[in-house]
Amino acid sequence: MVGHPASIEALATEFAKMPGIGSRTAMRLAYYVQSLTSEDAARLVDAIRTVKAKSRQCSICCNISETDPCPVCGDASRDRTTVCVVERVQDMTAIDSSGSYRGLYHVLGGRIAPLDGVYPENLNIDALVTRVKEGEIREIIIATNPDTEGDSTANLVADRLAPFGVTVSVLARGVPAGGQLEHAAKNTLAGAIEGRRTVKG
Amino acid sequence: MVGHPASIEALATEFAKMPGIGSRTAMRLAYYVQSLTSEDAARLVDAIRTVKAKSRQCSICCNISETDPCPVCGDASRDRTTVCVVERVQDMTAIDSSGSYRGLYHVLGGRIAPLDGVYPENLNIDALVTRVKEGEIREIIIATNPDTEGDSTANLVADRLAPFGVTVSVLARGVPAGGQLEHAAKNTLAGAIEGRRTVKG
Repeated sequence: MVGHPASIEALATEFAKMPGIGSRTAMRLAYYVQSLTSEDAARLVDAIRTVKAKSRQCSICCNISETDPCPVCGDASRDRTTVCVVERVQDMTAIDSSGSYRGLYHVLGGRIAPLDGVYPENLNIDALVTRVKEGEIREIIIATNPDTEGDSTANLVADRLAPFGVTVSVLARGVPAGGQLEHAAKNTLAGAIEGRRTVKG
Repeated sequence: MVGHPASIEALATEFAKMPGIGSRTAMRLAYYVQSLTSEDAARLVDAIRTVKAKSRQCSICCNISETDPCPVCGDASRDRTTVCVVERVQDMTAIDSSGSYRGLYHVLGGRIAPLDGVYPENLNIDALVTRVKEGEIREIIIATNPDTEGDSTANLVADRLAPFGVTVSVLARGVPAGGQLEHAAKNTLAGAIEGRRTVKG
């Protein structure tokens, strides 16, 4: 039987670790890389290295940025009394592009998913508590994905913030349940921010 | 509005060039790479470099291999009088795993698709003609994907081989039209090889 060359198999294995990439797609990507010119392959390698070398977590909000603090935390025109808590950086970009929110953000870096080995201590919750303790923040809007794991994460974050007297709200369930926030339409996100309801404080 | 860091955008641009990767998936992959440990990112970079350094086209059949000739062309137990012509290496792997074919292969490296800038001269057709001219080959089975572009490619290859007196056959249209050969079930492929029909010679 015809096998794939070992180096192709090895690269496909790396691609298959990526989110949403199955084994067949991974193999196709490996052959794609093989078909690249040396210049194009070098450009891909450089792009990977540059991401690792230049980008890091913002020390305030855990956004991924090439500056610290990130451009959002450093933006003096933003409302510094409101913080929107999201799972991932892409969710932050999606919410901001709805045009309905001009406060700050906090990126959890995921959601609680014990089956995937993600526990509360793996998320950037302590950093959020530290920000709240500093006293400037009046409201926390929790904008985790509208599904079971996102809701559990929202509950846990709300519980952790309960002692500090800030208002904690969650997005209105105007976003379609079971979906992914990143894919929601802008007006869906705008409506969900408008209709957020207070759950504590 | 919150943008993505320039290095993340640059990497997402590289990923978006890959087959089947849309802009949103590309962005997700870029953030995934950012989240890798330095060791895991280095492993990815090494895998890409190793593919480029070690694998090359077989000088006979244009298969991708770490040896030249490739293990298939070097396999003395195969029927050297029959050559199965495929678009891509993955198609060759799929056909071979059907267990119905034990001849040699020829990888065209794609299919004619003028809208994507792929013309006959971009495919490994001359190398196939050279093999046929050597005289050992009795039958060419053209196994391009069962869709419009694959059929056009098959017709062109059949026309190019017409002067040389070899039997040229195509796969039985047992494979579902409009689909991708790589995804076909093994028995679908086996049936298509069994039912191949002669179109020339």
